[in-house]
Amino acid sequence: MISVDAMGGDRGAAAVADGIVRSAKKNPDIAFIVHGPEAELTRLLGRRRELLGRCEIRHAEGVVKMTDKPSQVMRHGEGTSMWSTIESVRRGEATVAVSCGNTGALMALSMIRLRKLPGINRPAIACLWPSRSPQGFNVMLDVGADIKADAEDLLQYALMGASYARNGLGLARPRIGLLNVGTEEHKGRAELKLANDLIAAATEAGGFDYVGFVEGGDLPGDRVDVIVTDGFTGNIALKTGEGTAKLVSDFLKEAFNATFLSRIAALLALTSLKRLQKRIDPRRVNGGVFLGLNGTVVKSHGSADALGVSAAIRLAFQLAQSGFQDRLAARLASAGQARQGAAAQGVGGAVAAPGGASNLNGTTE
Amino acid sequence: MISVDAMGGDRGAAAVADGIVRSAKKNPDIAFIVHGPEAELTRLLGRRRELLGRCEIRHAEGVVKMTDKPSQVMRHGEGTSMWSTIESVRRGEATVAVSCGNTGALMALSMIRLRKLPGINRPAIACLWPSRSPQGFNVMLDVGADIKADAEDLLQYALMGASYARNGLGLARPRIGLLNVGTEEHKGRAELKLANDLIAAATEAGGFDYVGFVEGGDLPGDRVDVIVTDGFTGNIALKTGEGTAKLVSDFLKEAFNATFLSRIAALLALTSLKRLQKRIDPRRVNGGVFLGLNGTVVKSHGSADALGVSAAIRLAFQLAQSGFQDRLAARLASAGQARQGAAAQGVGGAVAAPGGASNLNGTTE
Repeated sequence: MISVDAMGGDRGAAAVADGIVRSAKKNPDIAFIVHGPEAELTRLLGRRRELLGRCEIRHAEGVVKMTDKPSQVMRHGEGTSMWSTIESVRRGEATVAVSCGNTGALMALSMIRLRKLPGINRPAIACLWPSRSPQGFNVMLDVGADIKADAEDLLQYALMGASYARNGLGLARPRIGLLNVGTEEHKGRAELKLANDLIAAATEAGGFDYVGFVEGGDLPGDRVDVIVTDGFTGNIALKTGEGTAKLVSDFLKEAFNATFLSRIAALLALTSLKRLQKRIDPRRVNGGVFLGLNGTVVKSHGSADALGVSAAIRLAFQLAQSGFQDRLAARLASAGQARQGAAAQGVGGAVAAPGGASNLNGTTE
Repeated sequence: MISVDAMGGDRGAAAVADGIVRSAKKNPDIAFIVHGPEAELTRLLGRRRELLGRCEIRHAEGVVKMTDKPSQVMRHGEGTSMWSTIESVRRGEATVAVSCGNTGALMALSMIRLRKLPGINRPAIACLWPSRSPQGFNVMLDVGADIKADAEDLLQYALMGASYARNGLGLARPRIGLLNVGTEEHKGRAELKLANDLIAAATEAGGFDYVGFVEGGDLPGDRVDVIVTDGFTGNIALKTGEGTAKLVSDFLKEAFNATFLSRIAALLALTSLKRLQKRIDPRRVNGGVFLGLNGTVVKSHGSADALGVSAAIRLAFQLAQSGFQDRLAARLASAGQARQGAAAQGVGGAVAAPGGASNLNGTTE
């Protein structure tokens, strides 16, 4: 069951409704609880045959606007469709929530209503990034939940990112890298050197391979599946990458419109160009995932259309089906135990956990 | 007079020599001092008619390798072509130095030999970024001279970046932005909020407009001409942007090779595609500039070919012709005086300098 916020996106409830219908057509197993003004949602969704018997409308009058401050939404957000959407996950009616609304408000509500998983200091937002990896995408986190992260936070991001890549992208043993200004061990800030040791010691408990430091150029590459960084750097890298891809696409369009000959060429190459567009279309990798809470929340782009919304719903469904939330919690708990065990044996937190710990817990995820 | 390090690039002295000849052909006013093994350089450059009477070869036996550690080069680098190249600027024989060699070593040698400008705490590396701005490029700094920057450093980067944009890109009054995770004033780390106030107060003394916080998506945009950030974030943004542009270009090539029809289309669109490639070709914006030292150093890409080297030389020549180094020093001094004046009047460093200060010094740059 997926809990969907119909309101708060730039294109209104109609785009979200179209996205729901699109997902429902493609996958007969998804069921929905949709939150928003009942009359409007009934008009948009009530008579769609594809949704018969698997779409419940939950009335919520209020709407969180893009300009609302997260702190205000936390205090006065009850009664909004966003609050109601999170509430369905909190009560266990739905496994994953999806919203196109205000990111800051959605994170704030998710934090106070779902609360953090035990042992998690800072939740993170993970995004998908078009890449040369076989799966076509890499995961990067944090891309903006918090502007700071210490070494322990970065270790938790590595564990959460690995679990997400395993359950969301189907990678048995994801390759993890830590974003830095160079790949040599002596490079970067002090917290990165410490995190480098912590993550290297957690590969068994976390079920991942660690490739060490990676650079900005590796984000779209095939050296790594999951890139770990703080939310400040991650947010700037994400927006820089999006902006650069947009610039190149715009220049390409201008180039094809420049002459009569090039316009004919564009027609001839139409199929190939569409395939290119599909590979780098941000709508197809739509969905930042909030990790580290008691419940999974998928944040769709505010400007998402039906295609974007259905991509976010597909991701949510994939995570729900794989039992991601329980596996993530189990993995974090076992990694914590492994580190405590290592500490109790007097070898210090930054040293590899004993092999036995990963065997004990290796079946939970 | 431009001082050129012929050695230390990935393609060896031949590529640098070709770049020098290319520049000499295009611009009859550039003169060179070229540093490296005399026999090799004489063979490469000695008989070129284009260089007659304006190319002096300075013998240096040693070569700084890409794998050499900066700390070692600082201690044992005397006698290398890189050392000799910097030395020509230090002695005043040349105005600007150009090298394709090891960035860390080049910065280290530049720091100890040229020394920092008065009042500068951290020198910075500025790069050019293809953009939608009328001039076709934006400036970003720091992209990797230092991994840290406090609010005062960011203010100095703004002053230096404005001066560079004025003299290197010909912008009378550059628009400066401070890179952050959002444009709202309350966003980001504490040092960014403080830097925001400091830069806003320095617009008159620095001769620039301040647009406030900008995001990663603005790097290739037309909101801003100069983007100020710390070297950690800047390095990751630069490499992310380069990697993303490369990914899209590769996908584009694959798309055009996919079918017979698309290959014909590529032929038809050849001129337009070449124009596109030219707009985003990193070789054409080749040259990170070291700012904040007693002398200007242009760092060319290690893999630069003749076209890349000549772009770096053109940039060096442009900066030499404009009297950039003296203007930058004067601007930093006057901004410092304006801030001291403001502080003496008891209005505090973060408040706008009195208008008179900028009038007194407005003609120096």
